[in-house]
This record gives sequence, C-alpha cells and structure tokens, in this order.
Amino acid sequence: MSRSVLDMSMSLDGYVADPNDYLGGEGGERLHKWADAQTGPVQQFQSEWKAAGAILAGRRTAELMDHWGGDHGGAPIFVPSHRPPSPAARWIHPLVTYVNDGIASAMAQAKSAAGDRDVQVRGGAYTVQKALEAGVLDEVQIHHIPVLLGAGHRLFDVLPSEIELEIIQVIDTPQATHIRYRVRY
Amino acid sequence: MSRSVLDMSMSLDGYVADPNDYLGGEGGERLHKWADAQTGPVQQFQSEWKAAGAILAGRRTAELMDHWGGDHGGAPIFVPSHRPPSPAARWIHPLVTYVNDGIASAMAQAKSAAGDRDVQVRGGAYTVQKALEAGVLDEVQIHHIPVLLGAGHRLFDVLPSEIELEIIQVIDTPQATHIRYRVRY
Repeated sequence: MSRSVLDMSMSLDGYVADPNDYLGGEGGERLHKWADAQTGPVQQFQSEWKAAGAILAGRRTAELMDHWGGDHGGAPIFVPSHRPPSPAARWIHPLVTYVNDGIASAMAQAKSAAGDRDVQVRGGAYTVQKALEAGVLDEVQIHHIPVLLGAGHRLFDVLPSEIELEIIQVIDTPQATHIRYRVRY
Repeated sequence: MSRSVLDMSMSLDGYVADPNDYLGGEGGERLHKWADAQTGPVQQFQSEWKAAGAILAGRRTAELMDHWGGDHGGAPIFVPSHRPPSPAARWIHPLVTYVNDGIASAMAQAKSAAGDRDVQVRGGAYTVQKALEAGVLDEVQIHHIPVLLGAGHRLFDVLPSEIELEIIQVIDTPQATHIRYRVRY
C-alpha cells in the first residue's frame, strides 16, 4: 500500500534550510553533505527517493525548485494551494497539478497516481502542519545532521496538538543519524 | 579531565518543555517517560547524572527548580547571572553560587569544583547560546524523543554562527534515540 513519507535532512537546532533557502554552510549544501558518501544507507535512501510514485509538495518549496523542471524524476507533482498556479505550472508542466480543495484531496490524488508506490512529501512547516492536521502524513524520515545551523527555516513549527510517533528504523553513521518515524493518529 | 555536558530530552520539533514548563503530555512528564524503563541505557544515563561533580544552570531553570533544594544530588550549583541572586539562593543554599562576570567564569568555577568529574549543564536556549558563544560547552547529550509536542520552549534558538558537531555515541531504543555530540569549535 502506498505510504506518504516526509524525508528531510534537519540540523540539531531543527532547521531544514538556512535563511537564504539553501542547505547551510559555505557551499550551501551542508545538510545534504551526508548524501555525497556512496555508502549503503545513502544508496538505500537514494533508491527510495527514485522509487517515489508521486510527489506532494508545498507551494513555496515547489516554486523555489521551479517544480523540479516539471516532474520529479518522472513522478507527477501535486501542490495543494488555494491560489491559482503560476503560468509555468499551468502551461509548461503537464505533470504538475495544483489542487485547490485542501491537502487531503491533494494527497488522495497523489496516492492514486502513485499506485503501490510511495508519495514523497516535500515542504516546510506549513505543509507539515497541514498534513498532520489532516492526518495524511504516514511516515517521517529525518536525517539528523550533527550541525547547529544557527538560523533558517524550521521543519516543525506550532502544531494544534501533541502527536505521538513510533520509531521504526534507526541507521547510525558518522555523517548523520537516520531515524524513521511512523505517525500515530 | 572534566567535561561540560548538556543533557536534555528533546521532542522531534525541538522542544524541551511545554508552554507551562512541564515536560509535555497529560502527566507533564512525556519527555522523561523513557527514563521510567530500568533498562541498560537508562541506568547508564542515571549513573552519569549522579556522577556529576558540579552543575552549571541557567537562572530561569535554577529558579523554576528551586535550586534543586540547594544542591544537585550533593553537587554544587553555579548560576551565571548579572542580577543578584534571590534571598533563598543567597541565604539558604550554601552550595549555590551566583557568578556575575559571565558564563566562562561560571564554567571555570564549576569545573574547578568538579575536579575530574563532569559538569552537567542545565538550561534552555539562552544558556545554551551563551555557552556555545563562549566556547565552554564540550558535549551535548540529546535524548531524541519520538513525539511532536506542538508548542513549548525550544532548546536551541538563534545562534551567531554555524557550529559543527561530532557524533560520538548513538544508543537506539524504542523509547528514545540517545545521541551524544562533541562540539567542534
């Protein structure tokens, strides 16, 4: 069965991007440095990313990434937003779908498109909050990076209630501690 | 040699206390629930806490805890603060020392009192920021708890610069992922 998975690299102080929307450090890629290694866990995660059947992306993330050029490694992209899409998303990218009746509807469409494969969720605090509120985020894969970025964009912000998670996998490397959580609704 | 160690239980959204300064959940102890188990890692951490030679505590934490009754399991308590101590800290608790010339001085006094034993650091974002700025925090032991508290007090807030950490130990249990970091200055 298709699962929705939020997969993010996060600093110990909770940031997923620096104030310029880069990933920290001088080259702007600090949070993804762990993925440069071609070790077992990295290959496993890269395979998961490539195997996604669909993407659900927050609008800000989607626009910052120019909708990944129109598809995400071939997978269709669903963007929940109450505002109309930009001209590019409307006219240039046939695999990008803006959904204006809420994140639950966007996730239903993404899961339908994904079939048996997973839906990868891409977004920041707003998208995460909405997905948790709607109960449509199944798993959270956090790559805990041993760095304090000091400032930037947080993955988690204020939520309406406490939410329990279940640890379902821990992979321990010197570059990152990869923890996978299941969301308990 | 004495090390200074910040040991905190933190939710995945970065909180170390809920808005009421409790530890979350209905009983107000969610973040410390992992320590109820009497398993190997819990006993190891409890031994470390008991073995501390001195405490350096942020003023707000120290006052919220009534200075732990005057000592922290027998260990002296050092509180960096530019304001004079409360009457209780001044008159009732001989093992509590307020230090008014900065956190580096407070840490030097705590390390001197601790001898070969560790200095346990207790505090929130302000104390952590000051200790990192002054370069006097050696290690950070975070008990990553699989819960989203949704609101509360964060351990890390804005820092003046990026700080690299080194993962020196990971202990993986269903209740918590215990990661120990060395601070690289």
